[in-house]
Amino acid sequence: MSARRLYFPSRVPVRLGSRRYDVLIGSGQVDRFLPEVRRLRCGTHPVVLSNPPILEKHGRSIVKALSRGGFPVRTLTVADTERSKSLETLGRLLQGLADLDGPGKRLFLVLVGGGVVGDVGGLVAGLYRRGIPYLQVPTTLLAQVDSSIGGKTAVDLPQGKNLAGLFYQPRLVFIELEFLRTLPARIFCSGLAEAAKCGVIRDPALFAFLEETSVLELRESQEKLGWLVSRAVQVKASVVEADERETLGIRTALNFGHTFGHALEAATHYAGTVTHGEAVAVGMRVAAEIARRLRMIGSSDADRIRRLLEHLGLPTTVHGVPLSRILQAMSHDKKWSAGRSWVLPTRIGRVAVVRGVAQRLVRAAVQTVLEE
Amino acid sequence: MSARRLYFPSRVPVRLGSRRYDVLIGSGQVDRFLPEVRRLRCGTHPVVLSNPPILEKHGRSIVKALSRGGFPVRTLTVADTERSKSLETLGRLLQGLADLDGPGKRLFLVLVGGGVVGDVGGLVAGLYRRGIPYLQVPTTLLAQVDSSIGGKTAVDLPQGKNLAGLFYQPRLVFIELEFLRTLPARIFCSGLAEAAKCGVIRDPALFAFLEETSVLELRESQEKLGWLVSRAVQVKASVVEADERETLGIRTALNFGHTFGHALEAATHYAGTVTHGEAVAVGMRVAAEIARRLRMIGSSDADRIRRLLEHLGLPTTVHGVPLSRILQAMSHDKKWSAGRSWVLPTRIGRVAVVRGVAQRLVRAAVQTVLEE
Repeated sequence: MSARRLYFPSRVPVRLGSRRYDVLIGSGQVDRFLPEVRRLRCGTHPVVLSNPPILEKHGRSIVKALSRGGFPVRTLTVADTERSKSLETLGRLLQGLADLDGPGKRLFLVLVGGGVVGDVGGLVAGLYRRGIPYLQVPTTLLAQVDSSIGGKTAVDLPQGKNLAGLFYQPRLVFIELEFLRTLPARIFCSGLAEAAKCGVIRDPALFAFLEETSVLELRESQEKLGWLVSRAVQVKASVVEADERETLGIRTALNFGHTFGHALEAATHYAGTVTHGEAVAVGMRVAAEIARRLRMIGSSDADRIRRLLEHLGLPTTVHGVPLSRILQAMSHDKKWSAGRSWVLPTRIGRVAVVRGVAQRLVRAAVQTVLEE
Repeated sequence: MSARRLYFPSRVPVRLGSRRYDVLIGSGQVDRFLPEVRRLRCGTHPVVLSNPPILEKHGRSIVKALSRGGFPVRTLTVADTERSKSLETLGRLLQGLADLDGPGKRLFLVLVGGGVVGDVGGLVAGLYRRGIPYLQVPTTLLAQVDSSIGGKTAVDLPQGKNLAGLFYQPRLVFIELEFLRTLPARIFCSGLAEAAKCGVIRDPALFAFLEETSVLELRESQEKLGWLVSRAVQVKASVVEADERETLGIRTALNFGHTFGHALEAATHYAGTVTHGEAVAVGMRVAAEIARRLRMIGSSDADRIRRLLEHLGLPTTVHGVPLSRILQAMSHDKKWSAGRSWVLPTRIGRVAVVRGVAQRLVRAAVQTVLEE
């Protein structure tokens, strides 16, 4: 890696007309939070929604910033596990908000946490009194580069993941890179999987940067980390701008690696044996393998994808999960997602959505990642 | 009433840009339903949501029309009481939809019923898979002239009414006047309250028509009923077009009569001793009385409002509810609605939204409608 100074924009707009908002990216920038909230005129009474350990570790600085500005801050908490993405949690949080409400108050939500807090909290904001403003303060790398941007909110139903939700955009995404310092290595690397995904689908320069940079460098240099995050955010923002409600097939590109990834998560019952990012990493390798066998991508590019994942400390194989269970989960997932189509890479920086991939081919590609 | 032929448009557009839809109004027009559904390309698998008696009485004709068109129709039911507007019902219906879903299906909802079916069903449609299309087939006069149009959906929370919901527009509102023939007199008259409201806030001709026409004539003439419904629909559509999400204060006009009305409903615990329309009727008289005392409206116009309500078989007084309980409910309602402001008539066809009406004045006006 050369010693050149890396510039990255500290403000990336998500241009969605009247629902436009900014993603602020920086290190040690909590001071920027209060003026931004004031500028947006979100309301009078902020409610910080977080999970208990993250509230203690990072949420307090956000609460303090708001309190310093004279806002009477209240907090609500939710456990940061997939099990919290339920109608029960949704109901509890809606009633929690109603308890904090009162005459003359204009509540708004500040979501401090990872993907679960963002998904449930965004839905609570979208439903309470038919929609109140909310701000995303993502505290994991995965949430910073992916889930906090684009307004997808949801809870799960017993029948499947994310079946009840909304497209409801936040008013601000506030990315504080310092929050990632204390992230466990494994969770950090899981976030890198979604960043690598952004490289494969749209950004060859981001992909090359990840190839040239070690995980250690990313953890030690806020500059490198900021550059990486801002590139991934720009990819995500441009895809969302082109297809906000995933009706045009463009946003589908973000599902690269997710067809197999979701099935692997389901097959392991979301038991935490694989993280979402790890499942997506293996899924990206499976998709690259299918594309290679279809001669849609050259072997060298397919290899680059696999090698990048290994370089980022991500798994490219799975142990002890039988093929039959994966295939079964994949056919169940078909019912609920765009599982009938595959997002396949055609070169680094470009993907195609392909329907009708032969089951035999899928099976063969999946077998390459399964170990006894 | 002269013997002139009354013309009314059978299609009233609600012009909301990309969310534009039509309100079809007619008598014996179920034949129009299928071609309309086909034209709108809502999906492949319709799910008719209704309450059991209405499904038997009116829903069957809708189910048959869809079946004749080759649609594989399924049904879901919900009781048509305020108690059904709960998070529990919402969850049950979302899971019911998921059970009917499957690969290659594109579900859409057809809501056949009154306000409760429309409110809960619209919310289910808005949330399931982040939004599927839905059609409103209102079967009460109140739903036809008011609640089926404008996309307000919600369920109640223990803390208050309609606290969790969405603005989510239907793809079609299909008004079959024949459905009103079997409506009990009291429920029919309750619907007339919302029609009278439309006259007071925006349409002097509608108001005059209601003055000149008896309830009996309306029940016997589909032509007169159609004219009335179409005028009210046009008022509602124009208000919604001007202020879809009730952010500009224009849609607030539709709350005329509702500040007191909601309080009366709450004070009687939604026990069915007063219907929503009856509560709004008394509420309109209270608002007219406040406006008269503020000299915002002349005594003769205020009297016309009261006399019209009586002419329509609606109550303008309340028996056996203590003043204190009404005032208490009104102050509780403040917390949840625009109860701090009053929608007051300034003449027939125009209202103003007024803040800071003195409590003493409200008290005096309320006292004029209370009987021992």
